[in-house]
Amino acid sequence: MRRMTAGEIRTLAKGTLRGDEARVVQEVAPLESAGPSALSFIASARYRAYLHATRAGVVLVGPQWAAEVPEASTAVIVDDPHQALQVVLGRMFPSQRPPPGVHPTAEVAGSADVSPEASVGPYAVVGPGARIGASIIAAHVVVGADCEIGDGVTIYPHVTLYGGVIVGDRVVIHSGARIGKDGFGYVWKDGAHRKIPQVGGCVIEEDVEIGTNVTIDRGSIGDTRIGAGTKIDNLVHVGHNVQIGEHALLISQVGISGSTTIGEGAVLAGQSGIGGHLKIGAGARIGAQAGVIGDVPPGETYSGYPARPHRAALRSQASVFKLPQMMERLKRLERAVFGEADRKEPRND
Amino acid sequence: MRRMTAGEIRTLAKGTLRGDEARVVQEVAPLESAGPSALSFIASARYRAYLHATRAGVVLVGPQWAAEVPEASTAVIVDDPHQALQVVLGRMFPSQRPPPGVHPTAEVAGSADVSPEASVGPYAVVGPGARIGASIIAAHVVVGADCEIGDGVTIYPHVTLYGGVIVGDRVVIHSGARIGKDGFGYVWKDGAHRKIPQVGGCVIEEDVEIGTNVTIDRGSIGDTRIGAGTKIDNLVHVGHNVQIGEHALLISQVGISGSTTIGEGAVLAGQSGIGGHLKIGAGARIGAQAGVIGDVPPGETYSGYPARPHRAALRSQASVFKLPQMMERLKRLERAVFGEADRKEPRND
Amino acid sequence: MRRMTAGEIRTLAKGTLRGDEARVVQEVAPLESAGPSALSFIASARYRAYLHATRAGVVLVGPQWAAEVPEASTAVIVDDPHQALQVVLGRMFPSQRPPPGVHPTAEVAGSADVSPEASVGPYAVVGPGARIGASIIAAHVVVGADCEIGDGVTIYPHVTLYGGVIVGDRVVIHSGARIGKDGFGYVWKDGAHRKIPQVGGCVIEEDVEIGTNVTIDRGSIGDTRIGAGTKIDNLVHVGHNVQIGEHALLISQVGISGSTTIGEGAVLAGQSGIGGHLKIGAGARIGAQAGVIGDVPPGETYSGYPARPHRAALRSQASVFKLPQMMERLKRLERAVFGEADRKEPRND
Repeated sequence: MRRMTAGEIRTLAKGTLRGDEARVVQEVAPLESAGPSALSFIASARYRAYLHATRAGVVLVGPQWAAEVPEASTAVIVDDPHQALQVVLGRMFPSQRPPPGVHPTAEVAGSADVSPEASVGPYAVVGPGARIGASIIAAHVVVGADCEIGDGVTIYPHVTLYGGVIVGDRVVIHSGARIGKDGFGYVWKDGAHRKIPQVGGCVIEEDVEIGTNVTIDRGSIGDTRIGAGTKIDNLVHVGHNVQIGEHALLISQVGISGSTTIGEGAVLAGQSGIGGHLKIGAGARIGAQAGVIGDVPPGETYSGYPARPHRAALRSQASVFKLPQMMERLKRLERAVFGEADRKEPRND
Repeated sequence: MRRMTAGEIRTLAKGTLRGDEARVVQEVAPLESAGPSALSFIASARYRAYLHATRAGVVLVGPQWAAEVPEASTAVIVDDPHQALQVVLGRMFPSQRPPPGVHPTAEVAGSADVSPEASVGPYAVVGPGARIGASIIAAHVVVGADCEIGDGVTIYPHVTLYGGVIVGDRVVIHSGARIGKDGFGYVWKDGAHRKIPQVGGCVIEEDVEIGTNVTIDRGSIGDTRIGAGTKIDNLVHVGHNVQIGEHALLISQVGISGSTTIGEGAVLAGQSGIGGHLKIGAGARIGAQAGVIGDVPPGETYSGYPARPHRAALRSQASVFKLPQMMERLKRLERAVFGEADRKEPRND
Repeated sequence: MRRMTAGEIRTLAKGTLRGDEARVVQEVAPLESAGPSALSFIASARYRAYLHATRAGVVLVGPQWAAEVPEASTAVIVDDPHQALQVVLGRMFPSQRPPPGVHPTAEVAGSADVSPEASVGPYAVVGPGARIGASIIAAHVVVGADCEIGDGVTIYPHVTLYGGVIVGDRVVIHSGARIGKDGFGYVWKDGAHRKIPQVGGCVIEEDVEIGTNVTIDRGSIGDTRIGAGTKIDNLVHVGHNVQIGEHALLISQVGISGSTTIGEGAVLAGQSGIGGHLKIGAGARIGAQAGVIGDVPPGETYSGYPARPHRAALRSQASVFKLPQMMERLKRLERAVFGEADRKEPRND
């Protein structure tokens, strides 16, 4: 991390300054816990109470609340504090790239082709025929035979790429992800589940990010494919032959069964599950914990189990909450119509 | 992968051929994306439209659609294209077994007993007293003290076996699986959760397959046991002292709480959860995302939360979808019976 | 494991003995599978039938069932068999700590500060600036730059600590856990999801236990924090900036979205999911598979989706199960009030 002055921050953020431009900050913290050596920011009215009481050394603030920054803090006034923060953070916390080179303990097959600009960490294992561009392969990563890894890729420790996985430029794969396992497909024969050979591939297009401990299976025939720019959170499962479009978001613990297609820009909220052989349209949104058992049209929001259009699901839910009251009204009607004596319930099969 | 001619495929598949028996294929692909050097197949009427337009070099096809294979493709006509495909794939993609021997970087304890036919990969760690048969232990696998691993086993990279785990013949354990952790059991005492010692074992019987990043805990007292032939998909959790029968299927992200018994041949669909100390009968089927809080009789299908017999769950669901309509009918009755003026709702506690 | 005599067990458990005090046991097993060389116990009336038939060498038993222990077994009679068992197990299965020292294959950065009492296993990688107390770092663990690890900590194989993670005394981290990844936060800009820099920290307080393949993300700004004494089961996901109080329990496969606060002593049952920016009060209990989309007051029990107070959720569930019957009653009323001919349904929008 780099120390910065309020003046440097103003310049980076293209803002104006009120207070001490020589004030030095060396960390970033929320308003309520920031001390005099911390940079903080306010980007939502929710936090105004914290602004009045903050002890932050420097505060990034929009013009509407600039007057509310305490005297002891230096205000850097900008149009969009959130975006300004990102610019400043990028400079305060420059990403630390390890130097290029193959660590002496890495086991690289003789037939592998590793760029001289690549960094291959301790105990990494690179299989025969693998090709690695100007990318970072961290400690303990296992790259299977014939994998192809582009440029600008970062693979964190303990990732496993099974054989033949293709990884596009600038992909980030977090620790413990398992890419390219042969999928879960069996036929029952002669008293046992026999594995259906899974000989397809697994393609991760450019700019994808894959979270920790994610599992993505290879195709049985044809490829599993994750579209460019898609972001996958931790502990997500992607089954064999799944096709995910560009710029989709898969939140943590989502599960997608085999051969399903997820459209461009779709958002699957946490713990939702999608059945096999389905089509989720472009831009569709799937609610948290939803269980999808049919196709979802483009742009639609589905939720609940079984997942339905969100409005209908909400209406059913609201009705369910009113059920005890409905039952009372039903009984009252029965008393009025049939009288107390006639209160026999129809058979409930 | 091996190149094959249409003639060789006919012989392997015990079929008949129409077209060029010298045609060479060197990959496998679905009808719609296959090119002239690819083998493809049709096993379901869903894909007939693709058959008419395919550019595949060779197509495995049943007699009923043989006439529809395009002229430019060679047809190999068989009774069961799916089964024929499996036979051919097994020959085109022979499994690549690493040669026997212990990699020089593997750390094998002096008291461990490793078969000369075993293959132990780079950076594998084998603890004291462990016994390993004619099996493949891939790179970065950690085998705890006193584990016993049979013959024909494949353990993929980054698997951890805690101490004393027993693994039967021909078991496959995929990357990142964690077998034999002491389970999640505590008693609250003197202001803290105190761990209940977990001193039972963990037995994986023969022909089991375990997916990537699966977690299976050891028994507290007595063993956790996975029955022969059972297949476990990715990211499944199996709690301490769980007993799973033979040939069960656990789809991805299933969770099974401690001391529960799963009968032979049961199928647990994705993301379903089974409570602790329950009995799921032989051949039972549990729906995706179902939450099981009671025993399930043999052969029954349960779904929903809380899980109930599937038919009843479906009926309730259908009723819920009709609730807004029921409410309208109820209001109409109230108007007719009580009149508008009397429209007071009973209290809803 | 240590062999023990019935007499030694009596002394340890502070009980009285009926039978052969020289009887030797060398394992522990449930009543129904214990043989003559096994210690067993009965702590619940559920298992009385097993008690009558047990072949266990020694049985820990309360005074109320002491008379029912078979003749061939030696009874050690104690007030609380469960607690006595824990004392005896602690002595029979002393934890095996590896000797201190850094394994010659471990890669420890020159600027790292490792206690001479620490044990660092084969192929462990310790980054620059890391500090490690008198703790066990097992094989294949990766400790990022500037991590701080206290005393008495055990980190099992294949754990990844990203940079700057702080781990308190006596913490246990199981195999495959990933701590401190930068969280899942993006803004959409110029046609792509742009990562919001995640520069906060990740603090694991003392006496926490973290299960296998758990994922805990670092804060974006400010820290993610797991409170002292909290226990986390396998495959749990904890998002960025989550604050978990002391002594909470998170059962397997729970997911917690970013910036949520979990109060002291809260219990989150298996597969439950908590949305982002919520407050779960101290001592609250969340049911298995519940989906929490709002704050939960202290001490309350919530269940279902969307999660509501458990009693209300149960009542709604019960009503749903009665819905087909309600529909019959509604139809009967309609027949009585409107007559068959008038049986037109209101529109259902």
